[in-house]
Amino acid sequence: VLVDVISSIAEARSDLFLNRTAIVVDVLRATSTIITALENGSSGVLAVETVCQAKTSRQPGDLLGGERFCKKIAGFELGNSPLEYTEEVVGGKRVVLTTTNGTRAIQKSAKAAHLLAGALLNSASCAEAALRFRRDLIILCSGTQDEFALEDGLCAGLLVEELANRCTEPIVVNDFAAAMLHAYRSARPALQEIIMQSSNGRKLAKIGFEEDVRYCCEVNRTSVVPVLQGDLLVRYEPS
Amino acid sequence: VLVDVISSIAEARSDLFLNRTAIVVDVLRATSTIITALENGSSGVLAVETVCQAKTSRQPGDLLGGERFCKKIAGFELGNSPLEYTEEVVGGKRVVLTTTNGTRAIQKSAKAAHLLAGALLNSASCAEAALRFRRDLIILCSGTQDEFALEDGLCAGLLVEELANRCTEPIVVNDFAAAMLHAYRSARPALQEIIMQSSNGRKLAKIGFEEDVRYCCEVNRTSVVPVLQGDLLVRYEPS
Repeated sequence: VLVDVISSIAEARSDLFLNRTAIVVDVLRATSTIITALENGSSGVLAVETVCQAKTSRQPGDLLGGERFCKKIAGFELGNSPLEYTEEVVGGKRVVLTTTNGTRAIQKSAKAAHLLAGALLNSASCAEAALRFRRDLIILCSGTQDEFALEDGLCAGLLVEELANRCTEPIVVNDFAAAMLHAYRSARPALQEIIMQSSNGRKLAKIGFEEDVRYCCEVNRTSVVPVLQGDLLVRYEPS
Repeated sequence: VLVDVISSIAEARSDLFLNRTAIVVDVLRATSTIITALENGSSGVLAVETVCQAKTSRQPGDLLGGERFCKKIAGFELGNSPLEYTEEVVGGKRVVLTTTNGTRAIQKSAKAAHLLAGALLNSASCAEAALRFRRDLIILCSGTQDEFALEDGLCAGLLVEELANRCTEPIVVNDFAAAMLHAYRSARPALQEIIMQSSNGRKLAKIGFEEDVRYCCEVNRTSVVPVLQGDLLVRYEPS
């Protein structure tokens, strides 16, 4: 099984995704938020690129969520903080979400045969689900504005480890995946502090979202895995 | 002191180099070869992008060296194997070198205030020399055809560690530098085996250059640091 990790959206050529299962990672915070929304009973998350698309995609009963420059968008019910997506708020509802990098990464990966959303919160279950599709894998680190983000790379490294632990065949990784696996192994004992010191960690803490960063660093907190069905991210249910 | 690591030539925008000291890294094999040539008494290495430029730059007594697709170029005296650059061959001579990625990386970094060539062979001395210029730093991993190469990333991580150990002020790293530092720390105990399994390590071993890979993994074998003076790489001599 081939496992390639791509460092940022800028590096993600569409042809890399063909016939593969893709895992999109945006730890701070889009994929962590999508996982949390589904865990708390949202019926599905529609990820769209623009604020305008979000507004026109809204159906009666939907919630609008997302951020620009880490902040809630005017007229939206929800920002991009996973802690807002509680059962009381999202239970039974569809969420239309637009974020700066995560939703772009999902759009970029649309050519993949299957698409899952991964984060530190669900990495073990995400790896398990990904292997069930029996295809080569590609893990896309969303990053920030076409640049590598440390937390996404470390999550990719953890996913590679979880995949290697579970896969019955040998896995063959690209050089970037090998680097991220080693980076994760070294960072593991102090994962939360290291992500706190990353570019996005510092930025979010500065504007009052330190609690979000802490939450997003909880490894394997949930078994919920978002999978793209049509254009909606829903809970993966093994058949 | 800012220390940014850039993952490949594709990511290297010229403006990132302005007013900084740049360290170009191409462990397999360009910077390892340049270091070895200077260690063995070459009077300087002129790195050029094309085979044609190499031929027209040649002056009486010069040696032509380089590779395309890992192999020696027709009509050149030397390939890109550091083990060819012995004292008997290169002593007292200037070498005109063209390689696929390393020389492109050097050209790309030309806007830097100072430019050094780094590899595993000289990382401690290279970090020490780089700090003497008292500027922010940028480390460019040459990679392979615009893609990240594991050995360059691990060498960048080692350089970050050597810089942090020596710098009297705190160093501030970008996310990619932090990831490479962690990757190096995890890979250190088995560095040679891990680089042997990298994409370039396997490719070189397959075509008979396993000995080169082993040699290029010898951490801090030499104190020679190539520095760009005019258009020539020469031995750095602290003033």
